[in-house]
Amino acid sequence: MPRKRDSKNQGGDGLPLNASKSNPDRAPKKFKPALGSGDSDGQSSGLDQFLPYPIHKVNRLLEPGPVLLVATGSLTNKTHNIMTMGFHMMIQHQRPTLIGACIGPWDKSYDNLKKTGECVLAVPAVEMLETVVDIGNCSGEDVNKWETFGVKPVPAPDPAFAYGSGDGKGAEEERARAPFIGGEGVIANIQCVVEDRALVARYNLWVLRVIGAWINKEMDLEYGQGNQTPGDAGDSVGGGELRKREMKMAHHRGDGRFVVDGQEVDMRDRMVKWKEFQD
Amino acid sequence: MPRKRDSKNQGGDGLPLNASKSNPDRAPKKFKPALGSGDSDGQSSGLDQFLPYPIHKVNRLLEPGPVLLVATGSLTNKTHNIMTMGFHMMIQHQRPTLIGACIGPWDKSYDNLKKTGECVLAVPAVEMLETVVDIGNCSGEDVNKWETFGVKPVPAPDPAFAYGSGDGKGAEEERARAPFIGGEGVIANIQCVVEDRALVARYNLWVLRVIGAWINKEMDLEYGQGNQTPGDAGDSVGGGELRKREMKMAHHRGDGRFVVDGQEVDMRDRMVKWKEFQD
Repeated sequence: MPRKRDSKNQGGDGLPLNASKSNPDRAPKKFKPALGSGDSDGQSSGLDQFLPYPIHKVNRLLEPGPVLLVATGSLTNKTHNIMTMGFHMMIQHQRPTLIGACIGPWDKSYDNLKKTGECVLAVPAVEMLETVVDIGNCSGEDVNKWETFGVKPVPAPDPAFAYGSGDGKGAEEERARAPFIGGEGVIANIQCVVEDRALVARYNLWVLRVIGAWINKEMDLEYGQGNQTPGDAGDSVGGGELRKREMKMAHHRGDGRFVVDGQEVDMRDRMVKWKEFQD
Repeated sequence: MPRKRDSKNQGGDGLPLNASKSNPDRAPKKFKPALGSGDSDGQSSGLDQFLPYPIHKVNRLLEPGPVLLVATGSLTNKTHNIMTMGFHMMIQHQRPTLIGACIGPWDKSYDNLKKTGECVLAVPAVEMLETVVDIGNCSGEDVNKWETFGVKPVPAPDPAFAYGSGDGKGAEEERARAPFIGGEGVIANIQCVVEDRALVARYNLWVLRVIGAWINKEMDLEYGQGNQTPGDAGDSVGGGELRKREMKMAHHRGDGRFVVDGQEVDMRDRMVKWKEFQD
């Protein structure tokens, strides 16, 4: 388990961990962490843990098949719920970035999704796996999962501040106000709106469009960062000098067993046909 | 790398490797390996490498998110092609078992799938990863991938002989004659027919129905076998006493890097809500 740290006060490697706060101009669209979410009173909303991540690279988070958490509803009206999900896929890299996800009427989240048309997909690291499993084994009808499992709902930022918003169908005028899922065990939060309900009635299959993606800035996400320029590593999409923790994904084997990310094999030299996905 | 072995002549652990041949009654529906595929002349078609696997457990192969190979077309008329695919998901466990897969017009396999409405999804083990990547980085328009990469197309058995056929919509009267993908690096072959084309035009998203699943009988598939009775391990769904090789899946990280299955974490005790998926 990684050491516990105070995200406010600890630096490390001589770099300010709140780089995006001290130097907001380097973040896309002058994003300020915890925007409008209570940061001004000295209380962190939890949002300052995350940095904008390129929407068109979301496949790097989802294609390996991690078990996910899904947040729906709204913090404002206390309808926010959280569930665990294993059935999902990338559908399209970009223009727009699309994800398929199975959420059925047996999930309380189904009603939320139907009503609001938006959700947040969070990628948990393996250190959070017990919580992830427990969240998937009870219903929001019966318990307040956030409180029961000590998971922090984080007010979501306006997707207009997301990295690469404007990619696709004009994310800026839209909103995905389902909360982020906070906590040091969360690798990323991906803001989605429902793009297509055509297969919901038949298969509970939702086509979601990504309008914002945010990555844990402590994440040692060696993959997914591509050929970032070194000087750009501090406060935009994580990685680089800020690499601190190796956060491994867990993949559900379908029967309660999970396999954790192991060795990495680099085949980029052989990917002659798909160079555009390596940037 | 596992040692190379002759699947015809080696036993191991005192168990006959061709158990399903010597004791065909124990396999579902008296399945005979290499049925009608040239076994009688002493030449193995490659099919005897695989054992029937329960269709309703296919999620255990696909839910972790492995990179896949896809075979389409037909051996008979020499239209068989093979491609690599990273965008797929489980949609439904059973009744029927459904999979989503993205195959677009940029893939030669798209035309085959459109025409025949059937395909085979193969799960490759990491030892086959270089080949998997190379197959994904050229087109069947330009090369015969089977020959170029030394991958053996295996005549597919009648799905009526699959374990659990009859689950769903009467697999027996159907056919999925796209070839299996042979070779000791292949974990499983999953026979599919197209169930729904509703989202193909919009997103190249095919809903596939599984009509047969077959697992490498050498596979040390500790997971996916559930609580098999020990005496049943020899010739039906692999695992058990026959466990020989640990075959790890590879998960594409979206940019040419792959993460290989690592440590397993058993959370079955916490899966109180979904016991039916642990059998």
